[in-house]
Amino acid sequence: MDTIKNYIATHKERFLNELIELLKIPSISADPAYSKDVLKTAEMVEQSLKDAGCDTTEICKTKGYPVVYGEKIIDSSLPTILVYGHYDVQPPDPMNLWTSPPFEPVIKKTELHPEGAIFARGSCDDKGQMYMHVKAIEFMITNDLLPCNVKVMIEGEEEVGSDSLADFLENHKEKLSNDIILISDTGMIANDVPSITTGLRGLSYVEVEVTGPNRDLHSGIYGGAVPNPINVLNKMIASLHDEDNRITVAEFYDKVEEVSNEERAEMAKAPFDLDEYKKALDIDDVYGEKGFTTSERYSIRPTLDVNGIWGGYTGEGAKTVIASKAYAKISMRLVPHQDPDEITELFIKHFEAIAPKGVKVKVTPHHGGLPYVTNMNSLGYQAAAKAYEKTFNKTPIPERTGGSIPIVALFEQVLGSKTILMGFGLDSDAIHSPNEHFGVWNYLKGIETIPYFYKYFTELNS
Amino acid sequence: MDTIKNYIATHKERFLNELIELLKIPSISADPAYSKDVLKTAEMVEQSLKDAGCDTTEICKTKGYPVVYGEKIIDSSLPTILVYGHYDVQPPDPMNLWTSPPFEPVIKKTELHPEGAIFARGSCDDKGQMYMHVKAIEFMITNDLLPCNVKVMIEGEEEVGSDSLADFLENHKEKLSNDIILISDTGMIANDVPSITTGLRGLSYVEVEVTGPNRDLHSGIYGGAVPNPINVLNKMIASLHDEDNRITVAEFYDKVEEVSNEERAEMAKAPFDLDEYKKALDIDDVYGEKGFTTSERYSIRPTLDVNGIWGGYTGEGAKTVIASKAYAKISMRLVPHQDPDEITELFIKHFEAIAPKGVKVKVTPHHGGLPYVTNMNSLGYQAAAKAYEKTFNKTPIPERTGGSIPIVALFEQVLGSKTILMGFGLDSDAIHSPNEHFGVWNYLKGIETIPYFYKYFTELNS
Repeated sequence: MDTIKNYIATHKERFLNELIELLKIPSISADPAYSKDVLKTAEMVEQSLKDAGCDTTEICKTKGYPVVYGEKIIDSSLPTILVYGHYDVQPPDPMNLWTSPPFEPVIKKTELHPEGAIFARGSCDDKGQMYMHVKAIEFMITNDLLPCNVKVMIEGEEEVGSDSLADFLENHKEKLSNDIILISDTGMIANDVPSITTGLRGLSYVEVEVTGPNRDLHSGIYGGAVPNPINVLNKMIASLHDEDNRITVAEFYDKVEEVSNEERAEMAKAPFDLDEYKKALDIDDVYGEKGFTTSERYSIRPTLDVNGIWGGYTGEGAKTVIASKAYAKISMRLVPHQDPDEITELFIKHFEAIAPKGVKVKVTPHHGGLPYVTNMNSLGYQAAAKAYEKTFNKTPIPERTGGSIPIVALFEQVLGSKTILMGFGLDSDAIHSPNEHFGVWNYLKGIETIPYFYKYFTELNS
Repeated sequence: MDTIKNYIATHKERFLNELIELLKIPSISADPAYSKDVLKTAEMVEQSLKDAGCDTTEICKTKGYPVVYGEKIIDSSLPTILVYGHYDVQPPDPMNLWTSPPFEPVIKKTELHPEGAIFARGSCDDKGQMYMHVKAIEFMITNDLLPCNVKVMIEGEEEVGSDSLADFLENHKEKLSNDIILISDTGMIANDVPSITTGLRGLSYVEVEVTGPNRDLHSGIYGGAVPNPINVLNKMIASLHDEDNRITVAEFYDKVEEVSNEERAEMAKAPFDLDEYKKALDIDDVYGEKGFTTSERYSIRPTLDVNGIWGGYTGEGAKTVIASKAYAKISMRLVPHQDPDEITELFIKHFEAIAPKGVKVKVTPHHGGLPYVTNMNSLGYQAAAKAYEKTFNKTPIPERTGGSIPIVALFEQVLGSKTILMGFGLDSDAIHSPNEHFGVWNYLKGIETIPYFYKYFTELNS
């Protein structure tokens, strides 16, 4: 298997150029204006699976954007690995903060990526990490080193809630049957501190609308006498946390997993430098739920954040208006054993209950996802740990992170499969932000590490 | 003077068409993209003053948009009336709520305007009301009925705070010297309930910016652990009112005029139907400072309203982001004897003081204006009351309203003149809102009433 290093050295430029072509297409699933680009990206991904040597490839229709599928079955008695990824990306705004255009990829050096990083929307999340798998599969098939069966499914709606995927899994249980699911859509602690994500938070995402008067009003004539929906929305949102920064939605914490003091002590051993953390974000203090450390706040505790707010006059200068409506997008990150649908219901009930007389409130659920925890004793985790040891010369750290990949819980429900999360990005790669990037070193290290997972997983299963 | 009715009957169509041409130009002073239109409007207004018979007209340069000036001096021993108005308009957004384009005026009938109303941005505020004066002057000069001297100044920055006007007044004290200032930039209670505005609230307007992390972050990875500037801004804004809806800015109420119970009882006699008010706005309850009626809340009490708020992802769908920055535009309406500069300082001090650790706060003052109260015993008020009695057959009601015309206080400071506010619009005319309109009846009634003010003011001064 040392041939992988040689193979990467030989094909490095091509690997980068292929990814760059993929990153040029603005496959923004959240905005219907880009639907053609999303579909074009699906076609490019299918072609890349063909080129990698898959026997069968297919663009599978769904109610939304299609799922790209490919497989290489070498022996039905051998284990089957199902790779999941997504070819859609987050919207790039605010555009003005990008130092280079989000869909014109360029390689630039950074402090953490001295060998250069590809700057583009989707470079890390998830086109870059998804494409590591395509190139690892190409290596294994081309060199006759594929030790087991592989199936690949790359979806196009991950950034908007994977709405069509539950149906797709239900309708293709047989086709998607596998022994383990492998995903690279998370990060690792640092290039010299490999880690495997063992816990993911769930998600409940809602949009709220507060309506006051039936039209925009002159604030001089009406100000002080009518419910201003922005003032009211601010008051309502402010009341969603108490003075200890605990969420006030009734019954919100009822099912939250109690993490034992022993476990918390174990987690606290992971390297974490609060000063570095604050410095990197240029904040003079952190902020969060009383009684928990920063690492706990973003991993084992649920949260409620406003992701967007708007209302009234937001142009240049001053306009003395009282808006008729105000809006916010609010997401809650959930931990085991909170159920996103239940939490969404609790939120709606609570938000309607706290609305003062004089305004009307509408809450629209966007999408949700169940929290997930991986067992460190599983063969999948062990195979992944051995793969990292081989290529990083270090034992990876098990890590619970705050992000959500709702599909991980769905896979277990519908397909009965466990998922291994081998992420090669860094927290500082600015996914979902302007100037998203993915280290060239990380990209190639992923391609190098993945085939070892196939090897060890097959060996451990034999 | 009955000739005014005949004159209007003869020239009605022309009066309407001329105003419509003026309304077609988007003279939006808040948006630099429209600067040519603002300047073009100034030229049209100057031409209209020439056509009306002014001896001298001039487009006077300022640091910002010019002031259009015109005059007709018939005898220096006679009184001089200075007419003030503005030719700039508010931005028209939200555009999608207009039933006809804001700069394509159309006349449509409404419940309150059975004779039709002109729908266009600026129709009432202030092009329509300003143009009543131009036409009234045309009538008086043409028919040799002008009883005194008249000066007219129409500015182009009223909707953005009249920034250049203080300098302009200082530099042209002699030219602008007068015995009374006459403005139509307010409303009246109803077409059968004429009223004269005797009190105006002042204004302090600020823009606030809250910065958390130095870049947009993924809410899964960072949510719950870092200060989310939108959540923080919401909490800060919510804290600006207490549970009685009193403003919590320290020292905010210290100089507020105490209105006596007798005066409050007098004001309470003005016709006001709370059910109608709520019905017109489609709200099931009003909202405001405890201990005051709705009419008091918008007239004799100061207020704090958010006029606009924005931050994070506001596009379609869901984006799980923690924004780096959140913004709001906040205005405070002031009453005698609050000073706008002082209030702005108090606000900045307070807002900075309540910012939690972890965020940075920036407050930018936009513009302000002093509150103003007119004396009912003045000759100006009496002349105006007599004019309304003549054309409406009713004694007008003195009314304090919530809007601000900062220049009114400025006039008194710099020119030493009192102002009479003869407004002919209705509260329901939707100024500053989509579908602004101005009743054709109101427009013509204004033209009819104004010459009587000249007549009675001259007589009372002789």
